[in-house]
Amino acid sequence: MATPCRVRAAQLGDCEEIMRMIQELAEYEERANEVKNTVEALRRDGFDEPPFFSCLVAELPEGEGNGKGRVLLGYSIYFPKYSSYSGRCLHMDDLFVRRQYRGKGIGSQLLSAVAQECMLLGCSELQFQVLVRNTRAVGFYVGRGARVLRGNETFHVLRFQTQDLQRMVSETSRMSR
Amino acid sequence: MATPCRVRAAQLGDCEEIMRMIQELAEYEERANEVKNTVEALRRDGFDEPPFFSCLVAELPEGEGNGKGRVLLGYSIYFPKYSSYSGRCLHMDDLFVRRQYRGKGIGSQLLSAVAQECMLLGCSELQFQVLVRNTRAVGFYVGRGARVLRGNETFHVLRFQTQDLQRMVSETSRMSR
Repeated sequence: MATPCRVRAAQLGDCEEIMRMIQELAEYEERANEVKNTVEALRRDGFDEPPFFSCLVAELPEGEGNGKGRVLLGYSIYFPKYSSYSGRCLHMDDLFVRRQYRGKGIGSQLLSAVAQECMLLGCSELQFQVLVRNTRAVGFYVGRGARVLRGNETFHVLRFQTQDLQRMVSETSRMSR
Repeated sequence: MATPCRVRAAQLGDCEEIMRMIQELAEYEERANEVKNTVEALRRDGFDEPPFFSCLVAELPEGEGNGKGRVLLGYSIYFPKYSSYSGRCLHMDDLFVRRQYRGKGIGSQLLSAVAQECMLLGCSELQFQVLVRNTRAVGFYVGRGARVLRGNETFHVLRFQTQDLQRMVSETSRMSR
């Protein structure tokens, strides 16, 4: 069943919780030993000028949660990139939903919000990498029109094209009417 | 023999010549059909705020050249990227030297300038992709300490680590003394 959630731009005060989710993602990917980032670096890199990334978070609507205040359900970190051949592009570093909230449409909401950012920035593509062994995630993206560009033994490089982005954005705006 | 050249930040007026070099690179890579970019888009994406990329160009010192004014020998397009696990990183989209100027140390000068930018921005890594069949380029980078991170049938993903960047920067500053 879909969990109603609110997707919004991350704020400075979210960084501690985002860093915790980054750790949870790394544990899920069995890559916890690769995490060198810190809350302080996240605050600086995301909120000093110029920022190195943008971040969206999904949270429970006000008044719901575990009684400990704001509960973040997931996040996405992304940033513009560029190709001299094809121009503006958006790269999504992470899209993560906490274990207990998976399968409730939150990933789709986050992904649509990123797709929207992508369109607003005039990027025709959204690129990202997914671990080949994360078949659930690959299925999630391929099911939404993503194409595997180049496979190797560890990563797929995937891409959404304009029509996929447009479709996701229009589906979300239709749903939220 | 090394050609003395000057590496500087690209200016708006260079975009026509940079677009020509992008075409030359695409022809060299046998990917000319993938080039969708235009001079107008380059101008907008590189020089409107916020820019989508940074660009360095190599040119002949003033007074040298073909008598047709400023001659650009090569360029590099790069931009910051981010990893939630490891933080700030620089991505180099292209490093290109025109055919007639290859083997003269111009690529090394450009690469060192990019490495310097990388350090200035507080990035510990410079990442880029090289066509596997471009064995000359792979040799160029690996010879300077780059490591092949993940190979597949089309691309290597390569990375310079801090010590390689520092070494290139210090070698260049020693050379220019």
